[in-house]
Amino acid sequence: MDAGVPAKKAKLGNKSTEKPESHQRMYVHDFDDKEGSATLVFSLPEKVGALADALKVFEKNKVNLHHIESRPSRELKDCYEFFVSCDNVRGGLQETVDDLKGCTNHLQVLSRKHQDQKDGGVLLTLPNGVEVPWFPRMIRDLDRFANQILSYGSELEADHPGFKDPVYRTRRKEFADIAFHYKHGEPIPKVKYTDAEIKTWSTIFKELTKLYPTHACREFNHIFPLLVDNCGFREDNVPQLQDISNFLKDCTGFQLRPVAGLLSSRDFLAGLAFRVFHSTQYIRHGSKPMYTPEPDVCHELLGHVPLFADPTFAQFSQEIGLASLGAPDEYVQKLATLYWFTVEFGLCRQEGQLKAYGAGLLSSFGELQYCLSDKPEVRPFDPAKTSVQTYPITSFQPVYFAAESFDSAKDKVREFAAIIPRPFSVRYNAYTQSVEVLNSKEQIIDLARAIRGDLSLLEDALKKVE
Amino acid sequence: MDAGVPAKKAKLGNKSTEKPESHQRMYVHDFDDKEGSATLVFSLPEKVGALADALKVFEKNKVNLHHIESRPSRELKDCYEFFVSCDNVRGGLQETVDDLKGCTNHLQVLSRKHQDQKDGGVLLTLPNGVEVPWFPRMIRDLDRFANQILSYGSELEADHPGFKDPVYRTRRKEFADIAFHYKHGEPIPKVKYTDAEIKTWSTIFKELTKLYPTHACREFNHIFPLLVDNCGFREDNVPQLQDISNFLKDCTGFQLRPVAGLLSSRDFLAGLAFRVFHSTQYIRHGSKPMYTPEPDVCHELLGHVPLFADPTFAQFSQEIGLASLGAPDEYVQKLATLYWFTVEFGLCRQEGQLKAYGAGLLSSFGELQYCLSDKPEVRPFDPAKTSVQTYPITSFQPVYFAAESFDSAKDKVREFAAIIPRPFSVRYNAYTQSVEVLNSKEQIIDLARAIRGDLSLLEDALKKVE
Amino acid sequence: MDAGVPAKKAKLGNKSTEKPESHQRMYVHDFDDKEGSATLVFSLPEKVGALADALKVFEKNKVNLHHIESRPSRELKDCYEFFVSCDNVRGGLQETVDDLKGCTNHLQVLSRKHQDQKDGGVLLTLPNGVEVPWFPRMIRDLDRFANQILSYGSELEADHPGFKDPVYRTRRKEFADIAFHYKHGEPIPKVKYTDAEIKTWSTIFKELTKLYPTHACREFNHIFPLLVDNCGFREDNVPQLQDISNFLKDCTGFQLRPVAGLLSSRDFLAGLAFRVFHSTQYIRHGSKPMYTPEPDVCHELLGHVPLFADPTFAQFSQEIGLASLGAPDEYVQKLATLYWFTVEFGLCRQEGQLKAYGAGLLSSFGELQYCLSDKPEVRPFDPAKTSVQTYPITSFQPVYFAAESFDSAKDKVREFAAIIPRPFSVRYNAYTQSVEVLNSKEQIIDLARAIRGDLSLLEDALKKVE
Amino acid sequence: MDAGVPAKKAKLGNKSTEKPESHQRMYVHDFDDKEGSATLVFSLPEKVGALADALKVFEKNKVNLHHIESRPSRELKDCYEFFVSCDNVRGGLQETVDDLKGCTNHLQVLSRKHQDQKDGGVLLTLPNGVEVPWFPRMIRDLDRFANQILSYGSELEADHPGFKDPVYRTRRKEFADIAFHYKHGEPIPKVKYTDAEIKTWSTIFKELTKLYPTHACREFNHIFPLLVDNCGFREDNVPQLQDISNFLKDCTGFQLRPVAGLLSSRDFLAGLAFRVFHSTQYIRHGSKPMYTPEPDVCHELLGHVPLFADPTFAQFSQEIGLASLGAPDEYVQKLATLYWFTVEFGLCRQEGQLKAYGAGLLSSFGELQYCLSDKPEVRPFDPAKTSVQTYPITSFQPVYFAAESFDSAKDKVREFAAIIPRPFSVRYNAYTQSVEVLNSKEQIIDLARAIRGDLSLLEDALKKVE
Repeated sequence: MDAGVPAKKAKLGNKSTEKPESHQRMYVHDFDDKEGSATLVFSLPEKVGALADALKVFEKNKVNLHHIESRPSRELKDCYEFFVSCDNVRGGLQETVDDLKGCTNHLQVLSRKHQDQKDGGVLLTLPNGVEVPWFPRMIRDLDRFANQILSYGSELEADHPGFKDPVYRTRRKEFADIAFHYKHGEPIPKVKYTDAEIKTWSTIFKELTKLYPTHACREFNHIFPLLVDNCGFREDNVPQLQDISNFLKDCTGFQLRPVAGLLSSRDFLAGLAFRVFHSTQYIRHGSKPMYTPEPDVCHELLGHVPLFADPTFAQFSQEIGLASLGAPDEYVQKLATLYWFTVEFGLCRQEGQLKAYGAGLLSSFGELQYCLSDKPEVRPFDPAKTSVQTYPITSFQPVYFAAESFDSAKDKVREFAAIIPRPFSVRYNAYTQSVEVLNSKEQIIDLARAIRGDLSLLEDALKKVE
Repeated sequence: MDAGVPAKKAKLGNKSTEKPESHQRMYVHDFDDKEGSATLVFSLPEKVGALADALKVFEKNKVNLHHIESRPSRELKDCYEFFVSCDNVRGGLQETVDDLKGCTNHLQVLSRKHQDQKDGGVLLTLPNGVEVPWFPRMIRDLDRFANQILSYGSELEADHPGFKDPVYRTRRKEFADIAFHYKHGEPIPKVKYTDAEIKTWSTIFKELTKLYPTHACREFNHIFPLLVDNCGFREDNVPQLQDISNFLKDCTGFQLRPVAGLLSSRDFLAGLAFRVFHSTQYIRHGSKPMYTPEPDVCHELLGHVPLFADPTFAQFSQEIGLASLGAPDEYVQKLATLYWFTVEFGLCRQEGQLKAYGAGLLSSFGELQYCLSDKPEVRPFDPAKTSVQTYPITSFQPVYFAAESFDSAKDKVREFAAIIPRPFSVRYNAYTQSVEVLNSKEQIIDLARAIRGDLSLLEDALKKVE
Repeated sequence: MDAGVPAKKAKLGNKSTEKPESHQRMYVHDFDDKEGSATLVFSLPEKVGALADALKVFEKNKVNLHHIESRPSRELKDCYEFFVSCDNVRGGLQETVDDLKGCTNHLQVLSRKHQDQKDGGVLLTLPNGVEVPWFPRMIRDLDRFANQILSYGSELEADHPGFKDPVYRTRRKEFADIAFHYKHGEPIPKVKYTDAEIKTWSTIFKELTKLYPTHACREFNHIFPLLVDNCGFREDNVPQLQDISNFLKDCTGFQLRPVAGLLSSRDFLAGLAFRVFHSTQYIRHGSKPMYTPEPDVCHELLGHVPLFADPTFAQFSQEIGLASLGAPDEYVQKLATLYWFTVEFGLCRQEGQLKAYGAGLLSSFGELQYCLSDKPEVRPFDPAKTSVQTYPITSFQPVYFAAESFDSAKDKVREFAAIIPRPFSVRYNAYTQSVEVLNSKEQIIDLARAIRGDLSLLEDALKKVE
Repeated sequence: MDAGVPAKKAKLGNKSTEKPESHQRMYVHDFDDKEGSATLVFSLPEKVGALADALKVFEKNKVNLHHIESRPSRELKDCYEFFVSCDNVRGGLQETVDDLKGCTNHLQVLSRKHQDQKDGGVLLTLPNGVEVPWFPRMIRDLDRFANQILSYGSELEADHPGFKDPVYRTRRKEFADIAFHYKHGEPIPKVKYTDAEIKTWSTIFKELTKLYPTHACREFNHIFPLLVDNCGFREDNVPQLQDISNFLKDCTGFQLRPVAGLLSSRDFLAGLAFRVFHSTQYIRHGSKPMYTPEPDVCHELLGHVPLFADPTFAQFSQEIGLASLGAPDEYVQKLATLYWFTVEFGLCRQEGQLKAYGAGLLSSFGELQYCLSDKPEVRPFDPAKTSVQTYPITSFQPVYFAAESFDSAKDKVREFAAIIPRPFSVRYNAYTQSVEVLNSKEQIIDLARAIRGDLSLLEDALKKVE
């Protein structure tokens, strides 16, 4: 469910009520810590019994530990990094944090800070004392988002086509529950879609596949037949998320992850940093097959999935995600807007012709035709301008932005990311599926060494290629 | 089980019978194709119905298809790559291959070729017609190795301490069966070790941990306490492979994989290319806790595991693996020898003192003390010389090689790899957990672009670091 | 004299007659080959007597040789490259070329081709048969431009302030003669400026230096005091080109070169590729010290010289030059326009304020004040748009373009250069002061190796820096 | 004259008297500061009147200034760098230095320090207070070496073949005088060699050119015919240094520079860092044409010159030079030994055969044959070992070292350089012909940026090459 970036309510059809309040709501974080739970990440110098010493601090302050892990630190030479989940039932958390400060030069506290942040956001304190909005560091940290959804997927609004359909609402709850309980690494449960659901899918599939050869970009049309062959993309079958996720993993390392409701922009974009796409699994209400006020499995599978199998597009999407990690709220909003005008509504120029690559276009029979007509305005993709362009969420877009290529779009996003005020750089480590915060000389030397290794490989390959 | 590289029978104790014939046997591949099964990988230009056309060729020639997959080709622009498993019961395989040659410029056939290869090795035909020994391209291709083991783990030789112990032999069969049925992606079954087994582990654990602070290298001693804290490395507990594998995945992306018996050097090293270490799960016979004629879980966990959590060592190991893919037999043998003198029996110099980092040393109470004494000869690590050094497999090593650092050792292995006659370069893609064969200009341009991206990141990080 | 890029006649004052015809004239090359002279560059495989064999072809066809050089080929392994100047008095040149084609795979002919090119341009035939406009390959090839000037510096037009002043016209001829006879590597003759000339300089110097602290960019103000200290930039002294050239050489490797008259855009920009700036040496007519219809030594020294001592600006200028080599006429025109809006009339943003860095601004008391006022329009520098912007040459500019920094401007020009249709890349070799045409795998491997060397250096420096 | 590295007295013939004392003497610097002259390099922050302020310090302390230059600092942002030559007649130098320390964070003093250094070497104080041996930073700093020669070229020893020949001694003085007065940038005076001198050259030329096709390396034989064609390498003509220098400049940027006598190893190697080779111009005594106790023009031109036209060899030589700058004495000695076993006496393997590339071999009819015979020992080139190998200077070498290629030799020297204890890295700037000391973050960022620029070029070239 990419709904959160930004809320696409009533977007894919022709409904016209603007809902700015829902859009604003997106930026309200709601970290679920009813009992005052917190997660601490801290580093300690290598020493026998380092962990035991640290744990005594918790014991002394009567803080219950739920889970502990330790790893070699990537950022501080000869140090260990500890991840500790604890609760604050007996109230010694603040003392614990203060005590730990005395023996570590790297302490991150994840907790609700009502007093500091009007929106209740979660902060992350960097070694140098700077606080930035919290962000996931390991792929399984994404599990945390399930508790942070802005609305549960079964809570329909009054104007939703399925609002008065109790069967549909029960069905939506089933899907939301699957997603709510999903943990990273598990297979996504396969769903048996009903005949009515398949019929809805079928109607959409038939119409859209007529337009793709002429309206979709080259990369989309390159991948689509592979989804037919490998993942059951057929008129009479709703493909399974896990099959698609396996296919994407082989192509680019992208993965799907079911989502139970609307995510904040910050959380949704953070998923992309790990090449994880939060996807809905339910289907729109059958009464209006060509309309949906929110993303559904048709939008995800027909609109988004094909391009995540393209290596350059995958990297482009990840760049947006990486840029968002720990960025100030205003820049997360800009990145969400960039996402809107690219991954959702992007056009590109190929052999002199405009083509669609945005999922919002490729999953909407009406807007896919409209966007390539002479009605809308088309401007060149330029992050500085695109990221501040306003847009309607309940009607066809009046303005689109056209990229020259995914490569150039990726370079432009990277340049844009460089101006985001953030006291560190991040690098994704695909081996460990984790984000590394680059803030020490040693890490930069490691990076230089890695680059040199890649250059040796390039030289070797050049020598061998004819 | 790293036994295959090279066969370490009777290695970790003080037994002295040389077994050269077993060593030679290692290079006999035994691809399981009783019924003439084969795997074909081929590329076709993008076209609607490309797959359907290709399948007609199989149908026409009456070849049964078992499994089909298709992906966008990484090597040929605008092409698809097909992976087809089929059998040759009705004999039209050769005709199928001939027909396919007419419509593809990239066809790899994996099959036994008795006529061409005296040792029955599996060949891979490159686009330009060159044949090289087959190698895995995706991490799940490693599943294939289970059928290629040189001996089943429960077949003990007459001089094995457990040869006459029916209980031990039954137990060994249980472990071998776990490994034989293991598939990539599954959790490694947890094993309940018996009290007797725990006692054996305990004896070894106690003795070795006394020596580590003074004899093991710095990196080993940095990681070891983390294994205690996170993976149950304790005197009274045999750690579980899956827990360790999870820990390693977080640290460096390394994974353990259970193995049912002796692997060929080629197969074993290929695992390292994917950061996969084939590990035994059984424990040595309790009658002689300080001796084992073959690798066991004590050797793997105490000897190998800690350093696979070190990023530089992980990369060093992977470089050996990548160098071996598709290399001629003589170079695979050289790389196996390099592996022997580094990952198994390596020494290094740290602050002016010799320390052990090889698993064969770190899991042997006797040899760990001997190797740092003044008895053996210690030479500088130099792949050109080290890779052709002969060695005994049933006694302490008379010669060791000392590295200056893992980084310099890694660079040296990479330089050595560059002289291996191989008509292509390989690059590991950690996102897709696959090996890319670099043999087109487009791929090299992609690599250059990736390097440039990393350089931007380096610049950005430099600007932000104090 | 940067006049040619584009013709700045009457630009630096407030005169208003547009002269479009003179602007068009700039693209008329006039290669001096009255007697049909030609220059041939060709490669031959290494062989004893290779040169002697080649010369026989000329002899046979009765073509007179004027000058011969040979070098190891940078582009073709194991080949020699020959540079031959010859005349075509007896008419065998075409036969010679045909004969040479038989024994070389790399032949470039530089000659006038009236039949092919309406403008009589000089073409260069690449190894693959493609013809591109000729460009200098070695720094001393710039000597050739002296014969290609579009007008001699002493030919004043009727509305020139010095038109009716015979003393001034004689003086102008002296300066033009110095430049006309100048050869690369010689010291630029020092000129004793008359009292009247010094008075003109003095007037301008006094006025402009009042504005610099507030109006010029930071880099300009950083360098200016050094020119005072080292090169005699004083109210009472007109600095000498050679002193300045020495200073620039130390700072960035830039050099000045006297020019006898108007150069074509192509030739002028080509000089920048070698970090050579063609400079006038005469001074404007003393009757109107604040006005000149053409560039003069005040414009060059006060406007251009300071920034050529800035490493990033030097590289920026060179990028424009390199992009122009062998580019199609329409792109040379675009690059000349880029030059106009940057090196001549560029603004930049520094600490939130607009500052001037263009020489046309920094040498004009009136326009320097005007350009930072609220009268003109200021747009962001964007090569795609800037390069096609029209502009007046006889009045203040209505539109300026502001760069974020020289670094970003340089990157943007490089990106723009990448889209110029040119069947090769060029690389400047500062050791040999020559332009290398990259069109072989060997050269690209050499480049990769050089980059790797620089990365080693970067790693080493990182390790050593605190 | 490369004599100094190390003293090759009696090397090229068969004379056998060892002269260790002369060899040791080489490391005695003899900076000519009879009147207490000194050179100061210091940086000051940008400020109007910065230079004037600095000069007041000298005035106040009554120190006479001889020469002043200032430049933008490459190492310290927003600073100027000043170069001041002064004398210490009135004794206020120490006070001046102390005063300057108060207002600069970067002060280098070049002066004799009898009290600190037993050998009277010139020291350079780095910004962080560390002192390293002085080294040239700009190419014209090499002019300083003329005053530091260890012996004047006309002072022959008693066993020199020309010792008793007054005509020869007068002639030698003429040559020494040319070199002594030579300044960087001037043309090297052409010499009219006498008939006797030409006869000596002729004898040697005839004999050696017979051996080259079979004994010299491929690169040498590739270049040699070009020297014949372009520089007058003929039996009947002694080529002129300036003609050769021009040719080398075009090929690799190498230059020749006449030298008046023996240079210290440190000074001689420093020349190579700038691609400057100090060459003798005189010829050996005609009485023994096949023998010379010291380098002469035959040795330089036939032995050294050809390979300096090879880009990889040029870079290899420069790497040795760059490694020597500011290195401790013991490492300069090691580098001199590396130079000896490569540039002077190197062998290499080409297509399975040993070939000579060292100048000492290629200019000695006897040793060129001997070195490829089975008499000497040949070991692989390995800087760690080669740099500490002892060798005779008056007889044929008993041990040679063979390189695999110039590229691999260059990489090995670079790796060796990385272990030289030196608190900074150096980078050669071929535009400004100066050595940059890398010791600030800004410089490293600039380097990263330059590398990224080169990578863009590589990408562009890759796209365009077929």
